[in-house]
Amino acid sequence: MDHFADRLAAACRRKGNALCAGFDPRWESLPAEIRRRQAGGSPEAVAAAFAEFCCRALDVVAPLVPLIKPQMAFFEQCGPAGFAALEQLIRKARDLGLFTLLDGKRNDIASTAAAYAAAAFGVWGADALTVNPYLGRDAVEPFLQAARKAGGGVFVLVRTSNPGAGLFQDLRCDGRPLYRHVAEAAAGWSRENVGECGLGDVGAVVGATYPAELAELRQAMPEVPFLVPGFGAQGAGAAETAPAFRPDGTGAVVNSSRGLLFPFRPDEPNWEAAIEKATRAAIASLAAATPMGRLAASPPA
Amino acid sequence: MDHFADRLAAACRRKGNALCAGFDPRWESLPAEIRRRQAGGSPEAVAAAFAEFCCRALDVVAPLVPLIKPQMAFFEQCGPAGFAALEQLIRKARDLGLFTLLDGKRNDIASTAAAYAAAAFGVWGADALTVNPYLGRDAVEPFLQAARKAGGGVFVLVRTSNPGAGLFQDLRCDGRPLYRHVAEAAAGWSRENVGECGLGDVGAVVGATYPAELAELRQAMPEVPFLVPGFGAQGAGAAETAPAFRPDGTGAVVNSSRGLLFPFRPDEPNWEAAIEKATRAAIASLAAATPMGRLAASPPA
Repeated sequence: MDHFADRLAAACRRKGNALCAGFDPRWESLPAEIRRRQAGGSPEAVAAAFAEFCCRALDVVAPLVPLIKPQMAFFEQCGPAGFAALEQLIRKARDLGLFTLLDGKRNDIASTAAAYAAAAFGVWGADALTVNPYLGRDAVEPFLQAARKAGGGVFVLVRTSNPGAGLFQDLRCDGRPLYRHVAEAAAGWSRENVGECGLGDVGAVVGATYPAELAELRQAMPEVPFLVPGFGAQGAGAAETAPAFRPDGTGAVVNSSRGLLFPFRPDEPNWEAAIEKATRAAIASLAAATPMGRLAASPPA
Repeated sequence: MDHFADRLAAACRRKGNALCAGFDPRWESLPAEIRRRQAGGSPEAVAAAFAEFCCRALDVVAPLVPLIKPQMAFFEQCGPAGFAALEQLIRKARDLGLFTLLDGKRNDIASTAAAYAAAAFGVWGADALTVNPYLGRDAVEPFLQAARKAGGGVFVLVRTSNPGAGLFQDLRCDGRPLYRHVAEAAAGWSRENVGECGLGDVGAVVGATYPAELAELRQAMPEVPFLVPGFGAQGAGAAETAPAFRPDGTGAVVNSSRGLLFPFRPDEPNWEAAIEKATRAAIASLAAATPMGRLAASPPA
């Protein structure tokens, strides 16, 4: 089984980019035609609408991007039916040859963390997942073990993209902000299992909304793959993601959720064309403003 | 609608104790009779076994304890069917008049956190939930808003009970450990909405495995209700939970999961009697060693 980071780098090279399409389905933003078919607003109806929208959007983005990031919260909001929709989305993404990075920010101790990890890799069939580090090494460990057994990866929250991220993450601990301590721990875990591309299987979530920290962290943890949220609707431009990449264009994936999946008004009939246009535009802007363009030996047709 | 903390205190007074029964169903620990009926080990079969076990265990503990804490990870591990089992457990707990504290340690930014909160209070119907504070105030805020709208509560992870909790939580930031900063933030949020009992609707998770920190935090945050894990199978004795309580026996709920739900070998036919015996023993030991005994105006029959 190939190393997680090598598989991800190869997928990015095949598509010629490192754009991650975030699947955050929101009822109020769905195309009106889909909402009409699922009137009533029961959790099951919303889940059915999410499944239809996500699968159709996936058909649009699958030829263009190397990976998707489903946000578990929106599926959880629909109860059991929502998780069935999530299962369907991930299965289809795998069938289409896409990486799936499950964004659940799960965290717990010992055997409980192991249950979450078993869910992510075993039940949902994800390639990677996001985890929250607050509980420490022994709480992250079961996720690492499950990831390594599955040839997958783990992305640890280091510096999140929200406006209030600094409340705890910026606290100075022994002369450095807390997020640097978390980053160093993640780098240590990642060095335990490095692929041929020089990147490990433990990544860091570092928001594009904090470009200075992004540059500092890229330098401090050269072997750590980055997942960069905050690009697009959250406010960061393509240039602000540039420090996340290594000079050859590997080392980072940049996520956009609302900007790619909801670039249309609900009454827009050609919403799939709008998604394709937004996705191509995001790839072009990232390629122009970051080293990501160097991945494009064979850009998408 | 009564304040969350007043409702919880009243529930504890009615049962004469503050023991929380943790529902962490584990396939390998289930009674053999239940596993036999659900042979095959598919996620659906495991979920059906969890539902049967949890509902029968709930019938045993419901007359004895004021609240239960389902651990979402074990249900998530069974996919959509697992969440249906969780839904069934929570509905039954509500019908039996029990508080339900949903342990998911969810965390995310803005509208994503709002989706998790909507799931917890709206779909699952919990009275309270656990949240991870690493992302800061604006990430905790949507949970608070949803809790306040539902008359519910939020328990913020402050000092967790796992052996490696200190890796980040103990880092000294501006002269105090990180967990103290989190505790102060939680106390500030809790003071925004205090009930007649003098306790707020934002609680703190503080492990009984760190009794010195428990005493220090009880003193530092007198208006914050505590959820105390770590009692029982995780190693802390009843006396170590004593500092969590206020002198009148309110102010804390003490959780035990494996110790209450799995005090039997899988081939034990009278496993329900074993659960009842373990629950009564846990209540008696807490009543003897902590101020919790002062709640027992009307102990369980």
